[in-house]
This record gives sequence, C-alpha cells and structure tokens, in this order.
Amino acid sequence: MALYDFYFQQFNEKVPLTKEEQEQIQSYLTLRKIRKKQSFLQEGEVCKSYAFVNKGSLRKYSIENGNEHIIQFAIEGWTVGDLLSFLSEEPATYHIDTLEDSELVLMSKAAHDELLRTQPKYETYFRLLITGAYIALQRRHSFTLSLPVEQRYTDFVKKYPEIVQRVPQHMIASYLGLTPETLSRVRKKLAKRK
Amino acid sequence: MALYDFYFQQFNEKVPLTKEEQEQIQSYLTLRKIRKKQSFLQEGEVCKSYAFVNKGSLRKYSIENGNEHIIQFAIEGWTVGDLLSFLSEEPATYHIDTLEDSELVLMSKAAHDELLRTQPKYETYFRLLITGAYIALQRRHSFTLSLPVEQRYTDFVKKYPEIVQRVPQHMIASYLGLTPETLSRVRKKLAKRK
Repeated sequence: MALYDFYFQQFNEKVPLTKEEQEQIQSYLTLRKIRKKQSFLQEGEVCKSYAFVNKGSLRKYSIENGNEHIIQFAIEGWTVGDLLSFLSEEPATYHIDTLEDSELVLMSKAAHDELLRTQPKYETYFRLLITGAYIALQRRHSFTLSLPVEQRYTDFVKKYPEIVQRVPQHMIASYLGLTPETLSRVRKKLAKRK
Repeated sequence: MALYDFYFQQFNEKVPLTKEEQEQIQSYLTLRKIRKKQSFLQEGEVCKSYAFVNKGSLRKYSIENGNEHIIQFAIEGWTVGDLLSFLSEEPATYHIDTLEDSELVLMSKAAHDELLRTQPKYETYFRLLITGAYIALQRRHSFTLSLPVEQRYTDFVKKYPEIVQRVPQHMIASYLGLTPETLSRVRKKLAKRK
C-alpha cells in the first residue's frame, strides 16, 4: 500500500476527491515515523502539525498537580493534535506521545492555512473532522461525569475493544477518570460475573 | 437595533460578508421568542434547528439516573443545540431550556444543508463555530476532571462572571460536577478569605 493510501481512503469517505485534487493535497503532506514511547508534542511547545495515524497508537494528556490525565487515545485512522495550539500558535497545554512504534501523516499549519484558502474540499474535510471530534468529546464528557464507574469501563470496552488490548490498564484508568485501584476492582468484579 | 444585527455582527467578526451575502443568509433565519423556564429541546426529539442567543440565557443538560448534568450555559452571542442530533437527525440526548425570557435566531437543518452547498462563507462560519465549540469543550473537560473543586469554581467565576450573576447556584454546581453542598462550602471558604 502506498504511503498515503490509508489517509486518502479516509478522506474520500468524507469528501470524494478527483485525482488532481488528491495530488494537490498530497503535496502538502509529510510522513513521520516515531518509535514507541517518544514525544510528538510537549506542553509549552507550539503544535506545528496535526497528525493522522497511519500506523501505531498515541495518547494525549495533560499534567495537573503532577497527575497525568489522558484525554484521548489515537489508533490507526484517527487524527490527533493540540488544536488550540495548532490554530492559535500559542503554547500547547497537552502532551502527546506514542504508545507503540508509529507512522504519522502530518499536516503543518502553513499547509493547512494554504489549503483552506485554495481547496474548498479540504475545508469541508476539516469541518467534518472537527465536527466528529466535537461530538466524540461531548459524548465522552457526558459519560465521564455521569455514569457509574463500572459502566464507564464496560462502555469503553464495548466501544474501543482494540484500545483495551493495546493500551496499559493504568492509562485506561486515567482516561476514564478512575484510579488504577478502582479500575482493577471493577475488572475483578466483572470477571467474576462471567 | 434590527432583529438580526447582533447575529450578523458576530458573523462578520468571523467571516466578513457583503450586503448581498448577508441578505442571502438572512433569508434562511427565523426568530423565536421563548419565555423563561420553557423547553427548547427535549431528549428523544430531533434537534431541528440550532440557536444563536440574541437575548436571554439557556442551559443544556442530560439526565442520568434521575440526576441533571449541565453541560453548557448559553447567553447572548453564544450558540446552542444538540449538534449530533441536528446533523444526524437522530433523537437528541440532551435537554435544552431557557433560564430567562429569551430571543433566539434559528438555523434549521434544511437551511444549514442548503447554505453549506451554496454559500462557502457559511461553511467557513460553521467551521469556525464548531472549532471554537470544540476548544471550549476540551478546556472544560480537562479542568472538570483535573482541577481541585475550589479552583474549578474560582476559574468559572473569573471566566464567566455574568453567568454567575444570572444562573442559580445549584445549576453552577451541576455544571462543575459538584454537589450543591460542596459548592456552598467552597463559596463560604472563599468568602472568609476576602
């Protein structure tokens, strides 16, 4: 499979492109390989690109009073970045790093701005991307605040079975707003029921 | 001030419009007045329009296990709706109702779809609207999970002083993920320090 095939497969599902349009957009993309447990972005830096995950997995998190709070996992086909920092060119408030060896398709701020000006289909793609991200975040926000802890975990397992397989338990606990001990208790309880 | 002046003031700050473009977009808008404590949207209905708040205030919330969880307040100049329901035409998962007598500028789904097809500046406006909403939600999500309760409240007061004046305390508690008792304790503690 050519380097950008997976990226454009996802793009075309949102907004069908002609061959010429695809070539134009591809000329703005860059590919980056990062080994596992390496930083893609650190708090305080400007997020100069957002990344489409071609291969591998990442986590996005903040550190508050010394504690990590995971806000997002990203596996193949997902997009990740510190959007506020990317758009405003202000320092990032999140850290992003790889969990596994990863291959990222990067869109830089300069490329993004130029495509917004010159390629209406890119604007549509980005609008749909951000709309999807907003809806996912709102769902996540509602359930984190309101669901009983057990259900938070069972919903997560149901929705993201692949992430459960690939991500350490203590990170899933952080994502769900639980302590590792609470998550461990919930998992034992659920295992007994089976 | 003419009915849609405030709406177009905010629109032009995001995307400058010519007089003709403004007239085109205005032809799709409708104005709706709702008295205080009335429903704009109920869970299970389809969200047929999203609303720009010309006057008044609203809250958006979910009900889980009999408890209300407020996810957003909206005052003049803000936009509110159940986006997932609006875009997908699936039943809404949120309730939205007015806190005060309100005046709303409505954009229906049919109008939204037609403007996306025919008016590129509307697409840009909507992209910026949703980008801003995503950033605000992400910020809110991070601090709700991670900040100590006292700081959640002081940050909220600093950021939204007008909402603190206009919205009942128990609703602010719900928004911050606190019980009314906890919020009351925090407020007393802060008052003593002054």
